[in-house]
Amino acid sequence: MLDQTALQTLFLDARSHNGWLPQAVSDEQIKQVFDLMKMAPTSANCSPARIVFAKSAEQKEKLAACVMEGNVEKVRTAPVVAVIGMDLAFYEKLPQLFPHTDARSWFVGNDALIEATAFRNSTLQGAYLMLAARAVGLDCGPMSGFNPEQVNAAFFPDSTVKVNFICGLGYGDHSKVFGRSPRFGFDEVCRIV
Amino acid sequence: MLDQTALQTLFLDARSHNGWLPQAVSDEQIKQVFDLMKMAPTSANCSPARIVFAKSAEQKEKLAACVMEGNVEKVRTAPVVAVIGMDLAFYEKLPQLFPHTDARSWFVGNDALIEATAFRNSTLQGAYLMLAARAVGLDCGPMSGFNPEQVNAAFFPDSTVKVNFICGLGYGDHSKVFGRSPRFGFDEVCRIV
Repeated sequence: MLDQTALQTLFLDARSHNGWLPQAVSDEQIKQVFDLMKMAPTSANCSPARIVFAKSAEQKEKLAACVMEGNVEKVRTAPVVAVIGMDLAFYEKLPQLFPHTDARSWFVGNDALIEATAFRNSTLQGAYLMLAARAVGLDCGPMSGFNPEQVNAAFFPDSTVKVNFICGLGYGDHSKVFGRSPRFGFDEVCRIV
Repeated sequence: MLDQTALQTLFLDARSHNGWLPQAVSDEQIKQVFDLMKMAPTSANCSPARIVFAKSAEQKEKLAACVMEGNVEKVRTAPVVAVIGMDLAFYEKLPQLFPHTDARSWFVGNDALIEATAFRNSTLQGAYLMLAARAVGLDCGPMSGFNPEQVNAAFFPDSTVKVNFICGLGYGDHSKVFGRSPRFGFDEVCRIV
């Protein structure tokens, strides 16, 4: 059981950030986040997430050109923006990732299963990335307001990788956070049976 | 920054469990998990996850009848199995969840956006559920090997909710865990640009 401070850091006090302090994120911090997130579960260990961490001004500008107006400044000012993609050819790596059985054969030729598995599991990995970032003291600003075709052309050209969502990483400017929106109560969305 | 013990609990030591100790999970623990997971981010706070926690032997038996052979015993023996669904009518709740703008209008009539948003965000919430469960000392056993039509008919009949994935919750039997499968190295799936 984590202590209350850790629960506050991961879930209760953490907020999605819109503004960023001018404090850099190191490559070592990015790798530390990856080394945590990669251990969390995916179906048959399929690990379909492929991630470009846009850190240079030039690459962030390239990404900013693909996002909705309300996200342009967030992309420009975040120290790093993770472009979280999913590899639709993920199953070709299953002999490496899940070597004890022929899991590749479950997917070959089944496009609906491929797509659902890539989307679900890369999204799980995106959530793990955000909580891993918070766990090492970073803040997150996830965004889905962008043009996916433009992002794919800019960051995953001629590739089986397609973007899922993007996420700013850095040290959030708490003065720019909006008031917290309401959450559902347990009984509104859950049942114990 | 969380301490090393917390990182081990959330990411590094935690495993997906196939066998369960005969130790109950209380309704209070289930609500504690929900009260953490609900705070983590979804797009426009849309919070599309709808969860049935199957706890009684009768309801777990009903679920066991819908899963692949390899998951039957896992469902029967887990103290609780969370059936994580997504509400495809989630946008009708946006006036409550995102009251400062008319976010409902972004979705009405756009089935592709509705489906992608429900799937992505309920999956994020499923990941938050797993890490929240680990954070309060529980173990997880996520499964996507089931017949979704049967699960929908059994747990979400006549509803806009469709199952996403299911997840056992309880105290894992470490003697039944498989050897850990390999993970990608950073450079195999990530780039810093």
